[in-house]
Amino acid sequence: MGIFEVVERIQGVDVAAQKAMAEHLNCLTKPLGSLGRLEELAIQLAGITGSTSPVIDPAVVIVMAADHGVTAEGVSAFPAEVTAQMVNNFITGGAAINVLTRVAQASVKIVDIGVNADLELPGLISRKIRRGTDNIANGPAMTVEDAVAAMEVGMSTASDAIDQGAKLLALGEMGIGNTTTSSAVLAILGQVPVEQVVGFGTGIDSSTKKRKIAVIQKAIAVNRPDPLDPLDILAKVGGLEIAGLVGIVLQAAAARIPVLVDGFISAVAALVAAKMTPLAAQYLIGSHESVEPGHRIVNNLLAIQPILQMNLRLGEGSGAALALPIVRAASCIAREMATFAQANVADSLKKL
Amino acid sequence: MGIFEVVERIQGVDVAAQKAMAEHLNCLTKPLGSLGRLEELAIQLAGITGSTSPVIDPAVVIVMAADHGVTAEGVSAFPAEVTAQMVNNFITGGAAINVLTRVAQASVKIVDIGVNADLELPGLISRKIRRGTDNIANGPAMTVEDAVAAMEVGMSTASDAIDQGAKLLALGEMGIGNTTTSSAVLAILGQVPVEQVVGFGTGIDSSTKKRKIAVIQKAIAVNRPDPLDPLDILAKVGGLEIAGLVGIVLQAAAARIPVLVDGFISAVAALVAAKMTPLAAQYLIGSHESVEPGHRIVNNLLAIQPILQMNLRLGEGSGAALALPIVRAASCIAREMATFAQANVADSLKKL
Repeated sequence: MGIFEVVERIQGVDVAAQKAMAEHLNCLTKPLGSLGRLEELAIQLAGITGSTSPVIDPAVVIVMAADHGVTAEGVSAFPAEVTAQMVNNFITGGAAINVLTRVAQASVKIVDIGVNADLELPGLISRKIRRGTDNIANGPAMTVEDAVAAMEVGMSTASDAIDQGAKLLALGEMGIGNTTTSSAVLAILGQVPVEQVVGFGTGIDSSTKKRKIAVIQKAIAVNRPDPLDPLDILAKVGGLEIAGLVGIVLQAAAARIPVLVDGFISAVAALVAAKMTPLAAQYLIGSHESVEPGHRIVNNLLAIQPILQMNLRLGEGSGAALALPIVRAASCIAREMATFAQANVADSLKKL
Repeated sequence: MGIFEVVERIQGVDVAAQKAMAEHLNCLTKPLGSLGRLEELAIQLAGITGSTSPVIDPAVVIVMAADHGVTAEGVSAFPAEVTAQMVNNFITGGAAINVLTRVAQASVKIVDIGVNADLELPGLISRKIRRGTDNIANGPAMTVEDAVAAMEVGMSTASDAIDQGAKLLALGEMGIGNTTTSSAVLAILGQVPVEQVVGFGTGIDSSTKKRKIAVIQKAIAVNRPDPLDPLDILAKVGGLEIAGLVGIVLQAAAARIPVLVDGFISAVAALVAAKMTPLAAQYLIGSHESVEPGHRIVNNLLAIQPILQMNLRLGEGSGAALALPIVRAASCIAREMATFAQANVADSLKKL
C-alpha cells in the first residue's frame, strides 16, 4: 500500500469507546479518578483500539538507524562512525535499548535504513535506501524519491510487525547528527526560531552549539524547504531514519495501534506525520520529555502530555521502553481490576 | 530484635560504591549522563546495597491495613467498613495493587495489623494488634505499647520477607481515615500548619475538608503530642498501619535494602522513621508525588525526588508498584549495558 492509501485509511479515535472506558473506570474498586494519569491513558487506549479491554502486548520497539552528511560540519560530540558501531551494539544486545526492552518485556527490531557502512549482522533488518544523507548545509539531504522510499520502509516494517502480532509500536532511532536535522525540520514545520529549538544534543559544548545553529540556519537558507510541504522538508533537511519513523506512525495509526513516541527526534517524526494527516496525532502516546529544548516545543505542538520527566537525552527508544510498563499498567487496570459490585465493596459517595 | 537494636544497626550508605557506580556509568555505551534520573537511581542503589551490580528482585510490596477511630468524625468519603472489604479484595486479587504488582513483576503481602473486623482469609498475614485505633479527636489513638508492637510487626514482616529473599521492599497501606491521621502526624513532626497539610483524601468535598482540618486541630489540642518524640506522636495521633510501615523502613535500612515509598501515608511513616534515625532516609526511593498537598511537604522534608508525577491518590502501594520497573531499569542498566571498550564503540569527547 502506498503512502496516500495509508493516510486515507487513518480514522479518528473511537469516542464511544473512550466514554465507555471512562464509565468503566468509575466502577472499579478505587476512589473516583484516583489513578490520575493512568486513567487518562486507559481512556486514550480505548479510543485508539476501540475497546474497553485494550491490549498493548506484544509491544515492539522499532529502531531506525541512518547517517547524516551534516556531521561533516562538526555538529556532534561523537564521530559519525558511532552510528554503525551502535547498530552493532544493538545487535549484540549491549545497548541501553536492549536492557530497557528486556526490563519492559518488549522486543526490539533494528532497521538499517541508511547507515553509511556495509552492515551484515544477524537479526538486522537491512532496508538501506542509501549510505547516509548528503550535507544539508550544502544542498538537500536526499531526493523526494528517497524520502518516500524511506517512509515506505517504515510503513512496511510496521506492517510486518503488526502482521506478526504487535499491538503497540514504539519509536526508536540512532543516527549521529540527527538532533541537527530534526531541529531543522522542527524549525520549519513549527515556524520556530532555530535558536529556540537547538540544544546540546548528546553533549556538545557551547561553541559547537553555536555552530550547530549556524549550520541549520544555512541549511534552511540554502534549501528553502516549503513550510507547508512535510515531504519537501523531510527530503531537504531531514534524515532517512526520521522519514522511516514517519512511515511507522502512519501505518500504526491506520491499523489503530498505539504509537509510543520516544525523544526529540521521534517526536519530530511524529509531528511530520501529524502535518500530513492531523488524525495521526490521536494515536501518539508521549513517553517522556527530555532536556532537549525542542522536545518540549514539539510535544506542545502535538498536544502530547509526556508520562515521564527524567532528564533523558539518549534516544534509541529508551524513554519509550521506560514508559512502556506504565502504559501496560493502564491497559491492565482497565482489564483486570474488580468493580465495586464484583468485590462487594461499598461504593464511595462519588461526590467528586 | 527490638526497635533500638535495629535502629543501632542502621549505617549510612556506601559512598565508595556510589563513586564507583558513577564511574562505571560513564564507561557505558551512551553519551555521558544521558540516562538522567535513571543514572541517579543507579548511584543511589549502589550506595544502598554497597554494590555496583545492585539487585532489586525479588521485590515485595507490603500492604499494612488498619482502621481508624477518627472515621467517627466523618472525615472520609468512604465508610470505615471499606477497609475490611478492600483487604478481601486484595486477597481475591481484584484491587489496583494486585494488578500493578503483576505488571511490575513483584509480589504483594497483605498484613492485617489492626482492621476492625474478624478476617480469616487465605494468604492474609494476621498480625492484628487491636481492632482499629481510638478516635484521636477525643484522646490518644493507642497506647505507646500498641504503637511499639505495631512497629515490631512491621519489622518482623520485613525481616521475614528479607529472609525469603526480598531485595527491595515497597510500602503500601489501606485504612479508611488514614490521610487524617497521617496529616496529624506530619503537622506535628514537620511543624506545619494543619491547613497546609490537609487535602481531599480519597475524594471528600470542601465542607468535609474543613471538618477534617478542625478534627486534626482538635486531636492535636487534646493529645498534645511531643514534636520531638516520634513514638509519642505515632501513639497519640497516628495509626497502626503507619507504625507498621515505620518498622518496615527501619528493618529494611538495617538490612541495606532499598525502600520504595508510595504515597502520602507511607511517606509520613518514612518521615517518622527518619526522625528516629536520620540515616534511614538514605534508603528511601520516592516513587511518586500525589495531588495530596502534604505529600509534597513530606517529600521535601525527606529530600525525596519522586520518580513519577501522575496525579495518583490511591495508596495501597500503587505508586510504588508503578515506579518499580523504572527502579529495576536503573539496576539493569548498571548490570547489563556494554562499556565502550566491550562494544568497540568510539568514546565521546566527554566534554560535558
